[in-house]
Amino acid sequence: MSTDNSSEYFSSQFKLGILGGGQLGKMLLYETRKFDIYTVVMDASNEAPSKIACNEFVLGDLMDFNAVYDFGKRVDVLTIEIENVNIDALEKLEDEGLKVFPPTKALKIIQNKAKQKLFYVDHDIPTADFQRFAYKSEIKDSIANGALDFPFIWKAAQFGYDGQGVAVIRKTEDLDRLPAGECIAEKMIDFKNELAVIVTRSASGEVKTYPVVEMEFHPEANQVEYVICPARIDAAVAAKAQEIALKVSEKIQHVGILAVELFQTKDDQILVNEVAPRPHNSGHYSIEASYTNQFEQHIRAILDLPLGDTKSKVAGIMVNLVGAEGHTGAVVYENMAEILGMEGVTPHIYGKKETRPFRKMGHVTIVNESISEARKIAQQVKETIKVISK
Amino acid sequence: MSTDNSSEYFSSQFKLGILGGGQLGKMLLYETRKFDIYTVVMDASNEAPSKIACNEFVLGDLMDFNAVYDFGKRVDVLTIEIENVNIDALEKLEDEGLKVFPPTKALKIIQNKAKQKLFYVDHDIPTADFQRFAYKSEIKDSIANGALDFPFIWKAAQFGYDGQGVAVIRKTEDLDRLPAGECIAEKMIDFKNELAVIVTRSASGEVKTYPVVEMEFHPEANQVEYVICPARIDAAVAAKAQEIALKVSEKIQHVGILAVELFQTKDDQILVNEVAPRPHNSGHYSIEASYTNQFEQHIRAILDLPLGDTKSKVAGIMVNLVGAEGHTGAVVYENMAEILGMEGVTPHIYGKKETRPFRKMGHVTIVNESISEARKIAQQVKETIKVISK
Repeated sequence: MSTDNSSEYFSSQFKLGILGGGQLGKMLLYETRKFDIYTVVMDASNEAPSKIACNEFVLGDLMDFNAVYDFGKRVDVLTIEIENVNIDALEKLEDEGLKVFPPTKALKIIQNKAKQKLFYVDHDIPTADFQRFAYKSEIKDSIANGALDFPFIWKAAQFGYDGQGVAVIRKTEDLDRLPAGECIAEKMIDFKNELAVIVTRSASGEVKTYPVVEMEFHPEANQVEYVICPARIDAAVAAKAQEIALKVSEKIQHVGILAVELFQTKDDQILVNEVAPRPHNSGHYSIEASYTNQFEQHIRAILDLPLGDTKSKVAGIMVNLVGAEGHTGAVVYENMAEILGMEGVTPHIYGKKETRPFRKMGHVTIVNESISEARKIAQQVKETIKVISK
Repeated sequence: MSTDNSSEYFSSQFKLGILGGGQLGKMLLYETRKFDIYTVVMDASNEAPSKIACNEFVLGDLMDFNAVYDFGKRVDVLTIEIENVNIDALEKLEDEGLKVFPPTKALKIIQNKAKQKLFYVDHDIPTADFQRFAYKSEIKDSIANGALDFPFIWKAAQFGYDGQGVAVIRKTEDLDRLPAGECIAEKMIDFKNELAVIVTRSASGEVKTYPVVEMEFHPEANQVEYVICPARIDAAVAAKAQEIALKVSEKIQHVGILAVELFQTKDDQILVNEVAPRPHNSGHYSIEASYTNQFEQHIRAILDLPLGDTKSKVAGIMVNLVGAEGHTGAVVYENMAEILGMEGVTPHIYGKKETRPFRKMGHVTIVNESISEARKIAQQVKETIKVISK
């Protein structure tokens, strides 16, 4: 791109709009502040973590057509930090010439998990077998007809986030507590590893991938406990994961970060689980470990600046800080000083005032030249820090 | 320290006060945001870079007793990002039990360069020979008496910043354009290198030093052009520099960051040039290169949390972004995209709206596994990016 274009981003005239003011937006704002890029954030909550770090804050419902449309009219480039936004408004803005990244075409495919799964099938992208249902009631029929067997994964087609809208169904009764509406039933994959690859695509089509990371999930909360970079897997498996992630990126034609979550099956097949078209939990390690972190990279991509180096300076492991069970109310971070005394430990506190069981309150990154040493320290961090209520 | 104490910092009750809202404060605020520590900033300018990233902003004159005293009454711990603050107010606050870091005792020694030089002499800390003058007029007498020879370095005793208040005096006429008031005349050192060592001391006395860095100055502007970490010097010289920096830290009894600027003479003596009791330009490389950057380290130190690891992940070089000569007015950063396309390059734009010749507008960090490669890229960055006016 021409340098004349780039200089406009670093002028006070230019305005970057961000839909969503959560923890991802907060971390995105470190990078816009670093580059002194003017930001306008919209969120439905006056308590939004992003609120104090943006140039302008707009209180508004991300699912409301007029709120999103009017917001878009105020900015030069519009991006998101959460998928659950009013796509019709984004489409109208896009038609009217606003740069919306990710593009609505990509966002539409991703926002609805049933559409997302069908998209993989249409493009020969390996993914777990599934059935799509318009209504929950259809699931029971399918089971009755022997077309669907327990156990399986139920996923709401829309508005799932941080493990909500996902459930393991082992018996008919499990269906009763699920919400109605469009959903999918996905075959449970007996996987060896859960992996993720972050792909970045710039507005003009430059593409870079981050190293494959390995994820460990919390069994009940269905939230990531550890993200380990690089994944401790064979080079051949890593190469296959990268190749499939690149294919998804190529087909979806996103702009910005695309986080591709993958299963490595017992027989080393790679299946696409799901994707997110924004900075992602699986890339938080990059703040401390990578030459260019995923948030700066997202900004570079949507502003069509050259993408940064995605390789790591050191090994990185991320531990999610989630609210402890049995604690609801004003949050206290216990033993913070102890973990700060451990080697290569950086806590990130998202600024949520109230904790509840399994609520994502922050994360801790552990960096080290040795990944096995980092893994040991990560375990100590996890066993030491407690997110409780007063 | 007990973990019960630490948890208080991460609660919404705790308030950290920062005097000064400049670029150092802005970078300090990335770290308080990361830790979700509540911050209150005072600065005399409504345009202060820190303004949008702190929780509360107070407009006030840092040299005004009442403004500083009243500000201090609102916070639990008080720190500075610039030395030129009202010390009497800080002393009163300290006497009344407020935690003021750096302590006023240390700040008093440092704020006045004549006092600072005498302090080195009193504690057998090697420094360049100098004479102290209460009035500029005394300098001419000293020259007339043959007690002072050209050339020498003139330094205002107080309120010098970013190269202001410092001048090379080669002939009598050079004295005419200098302001009156207390000053020192320092012997010009024929040095091989300018070095710096950042020492951090926590409230309870834990001490850690960063690697020795090597500085290259702009001849006219007397501002650092490159800061190179690690310094390309003998291990013995580096060890001596560390030892002397630690002695200064030990004698001054600061809390937080102390940046110690040093001369390496032609015969490998180490002389203390001057010190700053706050995060410093010579430590900016640490954001990208170090396990714990100087800003997070300063926060850890003043909150009496364990200090982080000071070693580097990779080699780091910082280039100051200063306003180009012949340009005054609304700033434009030319060729930003080009430098973003270079390996391991991170620009930091401070958010000043107006540029003028040699004004410090930001800095660029270059990280690389190889320091010689980093040095090459730093040169390219310097030759490419232009800070000009519209």
